[in-house]
Amino acid sequence: MSLAPKVLAGDLRAAARLMRLCDDDFASVVEVMKAIYPHTGKSAIVGVTGNPGSGKSSLVDRMVQRYRAHSKKVGVVAIDPTSPFSGGAIMGDRVRMNRHFGDEGVFIRSLATRGHLGGLSKSTAEVTRVMEAWGADPVIVETVGVGQDEVDIVKMAQTSIVVMVPGLGDEIQAIKAGLMEIADIFVVNKADLAGADRAVADIQYMLEMVPPAEPDAWKPRILRTVAFRDEGVDEVVRAVDEHRDWLGRTGRMEAKQRERSEVQFFDLALSRLADRLRATLAKDEFAGWSERLSQRKQDPYTLLEQIADRLFKTP
Amino acid sequence: MSLAPKVLAGDLRAAARLMRLCDDDFASVVEVMKAIYPHTGKSAIVGVTGNPGSGKSSLVDRMVQRYRAHSKKVGVVAIDPTSPFSGGAIMGDRVRMNRHFGDEGVFIRSLATRGHLGGLSKSTAEVTRVMEAWGADPVIVETVGVGQDEVDIVKMAQTSIVVMVPGLGDEIQAIKAGLMEIADIFVVNKADLAGADRAVADIQYMLEMVPPAEPDAWKPRILRTVAFRDEGVDEVVRAVDEHRDWLGRTGRMEAKQRERSEVQFFDLALSRLADRLRATLAKDEFAGWSERLSQRKQDPYTLLEQIADRLFKTP
Repeated sequence: MSLAPKVLAGDLRAAARLMRLCDDDFASVVEVMKAIYPHTGKSAIVGVTGNPGSGKSSLVDRMVQRYRAHSKKVGVVAIDPTSPFSGGAIMGDRVRMNRHFGDEGVFIRSLATRGHLGGLSKSTAEVTRVMEAWGADPVIVETVGVGQDEVDIVKMAQTSIVVMVPGLGDEIQAIKAGLMEIADIFVVNKADLAGADRAVADIQYMLEMVPPAEPDAWKPRILRTVAFRDEGVDEVVRAVDEHRDWLGRTGRMEAKQRERSEVQFFDLALSRLADRLRATLAKDEFAGWSERLSQRKQDPYTLLEQIADRLFKTP
Repeated sequence: MSLAPKVLAGDLRAAARLMRLCDDDFASVVEVMKAIYPHTGKSAIVGVTGNPGSGKSSLVDRMVQRYRAHSKKVGVVAIDPTSPFSGGAIMGDRVRMNRHFGDEGVFIRSLATRGHLGGLSKSTAEVTRVMEAWGADPVIVETVGVGQDEVDIVKMAQTSIVVMVPGLGDEIQAIKAGLMEIADIFVVNKADLAGADRAVADIQYMLEMVPPAEPDAWKPRILRTVAFRDEGVDEVVRAVDEHRDWLGRTGRMEAKQRERSEVQFFDLALSRLADRLRATLAKDEFAGWSERLSQRKQDPYTLLEQIADRLFKTP
């Protein structure tokens, strides 16, 4: 129980330990998580998404440098698609860690999107909370751009940045994935490449096609960067601040925080329900359930009714 | 209740109606779904995935023509990323339907990947079952390639096809998304483009880097097509048949079907658990829960304990 005050005092090792325990033995730290919860919810949460090769990691790196220059502690959660082969996140913490090695004001963590058998990633919320409790502000959540899970994660950020590269058809993919509608800031990275003007014009055109839902809606920014040469990054950081100000000024921050709380609670609850489901199916009375379904000796709807009878107080 | 025999007799309109009811009022058709379940599980399920622009829809079209030429009824389930803006699938049934308009032997259905608040798409399994009961063999499940949801869906197919285009970096994305490890057949589409040889060589190289897990493992095929000119499609259809033969011959089909049953049952059960969770949270005693969480007046872990007390028979 002495973990909570340590994390709240900004102890990096204690925070890392709490995160590990969240993954390995959540029951042992649930009281710690309860204790830190009231100290969360105040940091800026910035989502950054883009296809592999868009340079979003370089951009995040450069943004981290800016925040560090202002003595802010920064958290980075890098969400990687799970490899079904290795079962883990593809990019490791170590690769990323090296970039800010020795800087005790940067906390980086890689996470896989999802586990097996319907197990949603419960840990994004917990990792973000631990980072906030440790003092990170902002927390940057970085994801690969196509796929509903990733879109959901970015939607949960207060400010969403979509990173694109000229000439790769990223705009089309962004539309398909529904990213166009959630981006607060578009970044055309590698803006020194041919086609940057066209990419900016395309984004502008698509934004004009969707009329703003409310008269005082946020007008998404379209910015150009060359992250590896550190160009245009100040403008991105400034746009993030402006968007956050706008959220607060127009009263939208509150609604956003409530939605975030709702979705994160559902993720948490569903992952626990999945644990309970697994435990119930492991009981003797259900032995061989998957064979029975697969061999069509039982149907899934009847099995579900049996489980519900066993599990729930009321129908 | 007269729906089940109609669907099993191959009535297209009855099958379409059953699917609609699965979405709109599942309780009203659960007995129908129970009745058709024993008649499912025998058709070939073929997953086809690839990035937008890879031409996977054209390839699926051509494959459908082949199966129709052999008088087989075909089902196509097209999984589209959900647009958070419209709330529905981006590509409509109508666009797709037109391609095989008037052919009563082709049943096409578009589905969005996921709903809001952790609601997993329960309908892929139901739609596939209805198609099978109606007589579709094969059922082709077409998805966009990057994203864990899509990978999960394709994994559930008996035979997985990954479609790539030369020179677009699709191989890299496929690795990131973990598709390399699940593909039974690689199709380099638009193989008349420069870079096709390179793409084939890259795939071969990556396959060689991962040693086969078992000595009698399936050796993934790498095929070239120009779908819009109808070139190479016979080879794809033949490779699908060969893979299915191999699954049966080596006893792997059984394990695959069992895994499919497991995952589909979890999806079904979790989506019902989510419904129950929503219903519980809507009760008076929990009024204002999201505000309390968002304002840090309550923590989510304690709320979850309260819900569990209310919901479950045993802790």
